[in-house]
Amino acid sequence: MEYRLSTEWTSGIAFETEVDGFTVALDSAAEGIGKGPSPKKLMIISLLGCTGMDVVSLMEKMRVPFTAFRIEAVAPLTDEHPKVFKSVHLKYIVTGQKIKREKVEKSIILSQERYCGVSIMMKKHCPVTWELVIVEQ
Amino acid sequence: MEYRLSTEWTSGIAFETEVDGFTVALDSAAEGIGKGPSPKKLMIISLLGCTGMDVVSLMEKMRVPFTAFRIEAVAPLTDEHPKVFKSVHLKYIVTGQKIKREKVEKSIILSQERYCGVSIMMKKHCPVTWELVIVEQ
Repeated sequence: MEYRLSTEWTSGIAFETEVDGFTVALDSAAEGIGKGPSPKKLMIISLLGCTGMDVVSLMEKMRVPFTAFRIEAVAPLTDEHPKVFKSVHLKYIVTGQKIKREKVEKSIILSQERYCGVSIMMKKHCPVTWELVIVEQ
Repeated sequence: MEYRLSTEWTSGIAFETEVDGFTVALDSAAEGIGKGPSPKKLMIISLLGCTGMDVVSLMEKMRVPFTAFRIEAVAPLTDEHPKVFKSVHLKYIVTGQKIKREKVEKSIILSQERYCGVSIMMKKHCPVTWELVIVEQ
């Protein structure tokens, strides 16, 4: 299996990519005119989505009764070029009643160590750490 | 400087992230119901946009008279979990009249070796190769 993707310059420094029936626009808040998010932010979103999908699937399999689920990322960047992430910290926030912490932790560990390709690729570059917050409601 | 991003589970295995005034939806074509592109495709789009922005900016500075610019990526994946990229090949396709190949090559080399943070992070994981095609029209 391989991915084939093509991006097209539109104007300024903005690009558009057609993918799976969607159009993803990219631009730079700093230098562009705001036609889309910046590439490195998209990289973090890719990471969040990848691990999020794993954790949701695993929580479903383990019958964790979550009602809401959010992941927050904090990713500091280097000051010099090439501007890259120094680290990425993920906060998994799971909401629900009678959530068993060990089941959610197991889901996150399986994602971070076995399934989440984006996390595993990112870890070749910088540390990816995480914490879990359970909101009982 | 640091990025702070938050993604929210919506339904199934789909997620939405608010970023720079845009909403980026993610889902999985294979397992989801098609609410958005998959995370690893988004990672390639991030790479394409990051190097694309560099190359456009550098070509502008070097007064390369391009009229269209596209980048195609081919990224084969491993068969086993964690599914990660084996490599990424980028084809930069620059269209215009009297395009000087060496100026475009210099732009790409500067992006790939100095400026494009996403390429540089990705190269910690797998080879990122490239070629340049100039379309005279």
